[in-house]
Amino acid sequence: MAFIMNQKLNKWDKTGQDAEARIGTFTTKHGQFSTPNFMPVGTKASVKGVDTERLEECGAQIMLVNTYHLWLRPGSEQVHKMGDIHKFASWSGPILSDSGGFQVFSLSGIRKLSEQGVEFRSHIDGTKMFLSPEKSIEVQEELGVDIAMVLDECPAATYTEKQASDSLDLTIRWAKRSLDARKNSDTAIFGITQGICFKDLRTKAAAELGAIDFDGMAIGGLSVGEEKEKMYDVLSYHPQQLPAEKIRYLMGVGTPRDIVEAVRNGVDLFDCVMPTRSGRFGRAFIKGDEPYLNIKNARFADLDKPLDHSCSCLACRRYGVGYIHHLFKVDEMLGPILLSIHNLKHYLDLMGEIRSCIKSGTFETLYNSIKNSWLHVSLGSNENESE
Amino acid sequence: MAFIMNQKLNKWDKTGQDAEARIGTFTTKHGQFSTPNFMPVGTKASVKGVDTERLEECGAQIMLVNTYHLWLRPGSEQVHKMGDIHKFASWSGPILSDSGGFQVFSLSGIRKLSEQGVEFRSHIDGTKMFLSPEKSIEVQEELGVDIAMVLDECPAATYTEKQASDSLDLTIRWAKRSLDARKNSDTAIFGITQGICFKDLRTKAAAELGAIDFDGMAIGGLSVGEEKEKMYDVLSYHPQQLPAEKIRYLMGVGTPRDIVEAVRNGVDLFDCVMPTRSGRFGRAFIKGDEPYLNIKNARFADLDKPLDHSCSCLACRRYGVGYIHHLFKVDEMLGPILLSIHNLKHYLDLMGEIRSCIKSGTFETLYNSIKNSWLHVSLGSNENESE
Repeated sequence: MAFIMNQKLNKWDKTGQDAEARIGTFTTKHGQFSTPNFMPVGTKASVKGVDTERLEECGAQIMLVNTYHLWLRPGSEQVHKMGDIHKFASWSGPILSDSGGFQVFSLSGIRKLSEQGVEFRSHIDGTKMFLSPEKSIEVQEELGVDIAMVLDECPAATYTEKQASDSLDLTIRWAKRSLDARKNSDTAIFGITQGICFKDLRTKAAAELGAIDFDGMAIGGLSVGEEKEKMYDVLSYHPQQLPAEKIRYLMGVGTPRDIVEAVRNGVDLFDCVMPTRSGRFGRAFIKGDEPYLNIKNARFADLDKPLDHSCSCLACRRYGVGYIHHLFKVDEMLGPILLSIHNLKHYLDLMGEIRSCIKSGTFETLYNSIKNSWLHVSLGSNENESE
Repeated sequence: MAFIMNQKLNKWDKTGQDAEARIGTFTTKHGQFSTPNFMPVGTKASVKGVDTERLEECGAQIMLVNTYHLWLRPGSEQVHKMGDIHKFASWSGPILSDSGGFQVFSLSGIRKLSEQGVEFRSHIDGTKMFLSPEKSIEVQEELGVDIAMVLDECPAATYTEKQASDSLDLTIRWAKRSLDARKNSDTAIFGITQGICFKDLRTKAAAELGAIDFDGMAIGGLSVGEEKEKMYDVLSYHPQQLPAEKIRYLMGVGTPRDIVEAVRNGVDLFDCVMPTRSGRFGRAFIKGDEPYLNIKNARFADLDKPLDHSCSCLACRRYGVGYIHHLFKVDEMLGPILLSIHNLKHYLDLMGEIRSCIKSGTFETLYNSIKNSWLHVSLGSNENESE
């Protein structure tokens, strides 16, 4: 495997009317993706219930996989033996992997943090394991991803500013070690800012990490349970603190509302389990005043119309709402499959609409319309999970 | 809804070399299907994990749905309100429904049998319900299926010959009532023989039910737990006892070995949960000496080849065996989806091969090859279940 990550091809076209919103292209050895864009989450090298042909059909341009989960099973060595993650998962386009940090720091009470890295026990069989910035990059390069993320410490929401500051310093030291650990110049590596919702810390993170020669910058530690307003406050200043010439990725976010909010502030890339997880639970995202339907609601039992006439996904082109309602009522696995596909298509269509509106200078109208449809609904704020 | 069931278009071409094996075409208002053929089982109007586009892609020509399950949820009235079962399930080809009898007689201890019909309690909410031959046909016609099955009594394997004989007499009386209950001349109705493995009873069933003006004849009560040899014994004489000019459908059977055995004895149509259920449990049917693989076996962990090079299904054209193994090890729903699709394609390809071999006079070679590959393996004999 040899990747060519041609960063010089990245183009950022910023229009005056659209606040900080911008469009662009990011090029990897496995092709380009347009920004703003959304990455379907394939935690264990599979977007739950959605095969890669359907994923292509939904218009996905890049997918995300999870280093922690794939390191444990089947193992990066095993994936490498069968070619690489692209061949393994049958996805020929760009693939980004997270560093595994978020999962390790989510394991309660079974980890030991040191300057060197983090010791933890596998959630599968209790095996003692050690993840360091170097190990994370090694695993990601062995998987053969196009974009690897640095290992960061994910601070608890309860951290004081002092604790969060110490944590950020460690994250910065780890970020440098991560970059130094790169063996394959074709692997793009993104830095990650932390600092919870402390403006001073976010500002410092942006300055210090932004000065390092990363191929892109990510914003971590948001949408992990904090109030929406706090996240929106960080979004109001933080993305613009990151180098304008680098791609900006907001990790694990979010609802369509969150996405337009972030795009408006200059964010280019997203991932979230929301479309698939919501789909499995019977939630269908739609256009218009009502942002989503609970498909199990009795009012949908005999509706023979598609979820969304303007949507070309499998669910909308073949089935009526009443049938999908039925599938959920009788626990047929086709129900979660159809809504996962539909929601992914909804998200990816939204990203296309965002790009085209930024291009034509009409993003603000789209932003307002989505903001208004979400004014009185909430899906909770703890979206940042792997699945 | 108006169906045109043109039975005059049924053609049966029997070749001398191939024992009783025969090819043909059955025409319904929703198109034709070639025989011998296999119906994927969509118990609750969904073939588990397989959308109807994939089903078409697998080469399915006709699908089966379950009257009992659809009567309970969403209700035949509800389906009718949204058009019919074709529109509801998004399947434009022929659809056959069973009568619901098998399910009702499988409910343990909560049914009351009379000349009129059978009283039972819904397995969903305990509601008292009554199924009669007339009610079953009414529900099936309300669903709008192309082929309806008569309500039969499904005798317990422990019945004495006398009990089985009384049961068969009731089944014959019910069969006549079922046919009389037809309101829509476009609905094809198939009779069903019973008689467990008693030759006298099967012979009587064939004579008496074969004399009634059904559009096709089904063999019920096999593959319900009896030994394979007993089933093969019935198959050795019973299909030929049925009118040669009518389609012969062996209900709920079976393995590829069972299918070639039955085709060789003049059976034309099959349904079974085996390909999808086996797929969900990690069993992949393949060609060659080893008739199926247990995908969870460690020896498949790093195999990057497709399950079957000659198979064009989604699983085989996109993924390696090692990846599908991984999906099962980490409980990803895509694993069961891929093997369900693969196994259906395997079955439907087999039916195509059977038809082409009968046509070219080489069926006996195919029969022997499949028989030999199954000589030392068994999947159990209780395949006749809805799912």
